[in-house]
Amino acid sequence: METKTIKAFGTEAADKPLHSLQINRRVPEPHDVEIEILYCGICHSDLHASRDEWGGTKYPIVPGHEIVGRVTNVGNHVTKFKVGDIAAIGCIVDSCRECDYCKEGMEQFCEPGNTIVFGSRDKNMGGYTFGGFSESIVADENYVLHVPAGLDLAAAAPLLCAGITVYSPLKHWKTGPGKKIGIIGIGGLGHLAIKIAKAMGAHVIVFTTSISKAEDAERLGADEVVLSTDARQMKKQSKLDMILDTVSANHNVNDYLKMLKVDGSLVLVGLPVDDISVEAFKLVKGRKSFSGSNIGGIAETQEMLDFCAAHNITAEIEMITMQQINEAYDRMEKGDVRYRFVIDMATLKN
Amino acid sequence: METKTIKAFGTEAADKPLHSLQINRRVPEPHDVEIEILYCGICHSDLHASRDEWGGTKYPIVPGHEIVGRVTNVGNHVTKFKVGDIAAIGCIVDSCRECDYCKEGMEQFCEPGNTIVFGSRDKNMGGYTFGGFSESIVADENYVLHVPAGLDLAAAAPLLCAGITVYSPLKHWKTGPGKKIGIIGIGGLGHLAIKIAKAMGAHVIVFTTSISKAEDAERLGADEVVLSTDARQMKKQSKLDMILDTVSANHNVNDYLKMLKVDGSLVLVGLPVDDISVEAFKLVKGRKSFSGSNIGGIAETQEMLDFCAAHNITAEIEMITMQQINEAYDRMEKGDVRYRFVIDMATLKN
Repeated sequence: METKTIKAFGTEAADKPLHSLQINRRVPEPHDVEIEILYCGICHSDLHASRDEWGGTKYPIVPGHEIVGRVTNVGNHVTKFKVGDIAAIGCIVDSCRECDYCKEGMEQFCEPGNTIVFGSRDKNMGGYTFGGFSESIVADENYVLHVPAGLDLAAAAPLLCAGITVYSPLKHWKTGPGKKIGIIGIGGLGHLAIKIAKAMGAHVIVFTTSISKAEDAERLGADEVVLSTDARQMKKQSKLDMILDTVSANHNVNDYLKMLKVDGSLVLVGLPVDDISVEAFKLVKGRKSFSGSNIGGIAETQEMLDFCAAHNITAEIEMITMQQINEAYDRMEKGDVRYRFVIDMATLKN
Repeated sequence: METKTIKAFGTEAADKPLHSLQINRRVPEPHDVEIEILYCGICHSDLHASRDEWGGTKYPIVPGHEIVGRVTNVGNHVTKFKVGDIAAIGCIVDSCRECDYCKEGMEQFCEPGNTIVFGSRDKNMGGYTFGGFSESIVADENYVLHVPAGLDLAAAAPLLCAGITVYSPLKHWKTGPGKKIGIIGIGGLGHLAIKIAKAMGAHVIVFTTSISKAEDAERLGADEVVLSTDARQMKKQSKLDMILDTVSANHNVNDYLKMLKVDGSLVLVGLPVDDISVEAFKLVKGRKSFSGSNIGGIAETQEMLDFCAAHNITAEIEMITMQQINEAYDRMEKGDVRYRFVIDMATLKN
């Protein structure tokens, strides 16, 4: 297999900062698309993986899974993309394509296991896949998305993970006019969830521990903002249809289960490290559900991008250079970002 | 309001055994049906309430909410019942009839709060309602069920709580042919769940800690029986559509969440006293739900009785006299009943 060497940013160890390094990419095979990466968002899971906080990181790691760029080469069987197209890649770059879930467009639940953009077994080149903190990336066209015209490319990058992670459950649990939808947390995920739920036509109630974010929440589209540390405000909320929980820090889910209507769902997309304590009575009384959701499928990701373009939705971002990545990680650890860092990948060449 | 005094069994205090006492029942109003109670099942919640184990019990208490009997009198506006009919009463004897949930036949979720057969505010007579451990009972005809011909009356009594408690979630979560349905626990609820899920056409997998109940489970209709203390057996189970959890003792739900297929639900109908520990990852990976369910509505209870008659389903019971109630409670505490006690209410006259 023909390969080429490119520049990237990554690390060889959990306790080592990210730095410039070189990796190999395959030259496009017949069904492949090669993309010059223009922008790459930074998700908390990039940080977790870099520092091996969930365990299992394969080093060297090149993180990055919110990728927007320009097509620079296509294999001779590619039909969906041509050189010059603006394209995107999210979490999934391949899957078995044969299991029931893949056939139903739920590649995120691929049974034998899908190929994640970084840290998965690389079926083509051996070793492990490398992510978007790099000059370019190559993937099968079926796992590449079109970025609709009109979207700011840098601010669109976070849609590829944060966007689909909230869009998929909001849609699955039927967010729309007449529905009262709660969003817990105003971060990378939460701020997009507010915009998307509002664009879907719902009445949006935002729960935050930061009084300083309340104004932002309203600007983003919240109909109501509830300070979750204020029991009096919390008590007033009732009959919510669905609550999307974007918080990864430990928190009491029973307070939220209580405010759901009959058949309502509290849906977790954050991943608290500790187990979550649930009162049986809170579920039984009102036939409620505590559920989870995990990114989305490829077709659904395209649908989300098209939806965001139609409603002029992108992330609120802070642009950084590739060299600022370690500082950005430190700030993310403190929650000091409104609301997503995006790397201007042109700076990788510096 | 005209009343009459009847015999009942109840207690005035949590630490006092049940004994014979007298209570007042209203004489039927225009929309009321009076029923001579022939059989009354004993549910664990009768025991909890008698001993104030959940708190809030109003004394004197007369438990009993799995009631089958014969109509002895009807008000002059009653159209659905006539003297001599075999009728039944379950948990709910009244509700607001005006809220969205009542209008949709979900009286179990009545917003202002429904009237439970014992221990609820009695809207007609003041004080608190008295349950089925009594000679007779009076209720509005809209909260009285018809017992279809062909059902053994004593063995049908437990359908009024245990039956509907498992039928409602099995139906709500679409149990049927082609579905793999798990049932955790083979007790009063679980043994009926096995029969009903099988009659609905599902492949039924039963989880038990008692190897001694495995044969029973098969006789009741289980396609597979898994000893839940055997990790090797547990590991083999996968891709279940729904698991009905009838166990009130503390247990690890994460083991069961793991074996659900994508979009599967673990549904709790037992009420463990301690909070339940849930691993976020178990929900997120596979968009799974941990849910609860609480009895069922009146129309659904009638549907369940008709379904059970059509499929010849009743509980496996052990008949006792009214005077054996305290002994029965003690045996229930040890789980020593296969699978439901039913009181022959004729013995109340002894």
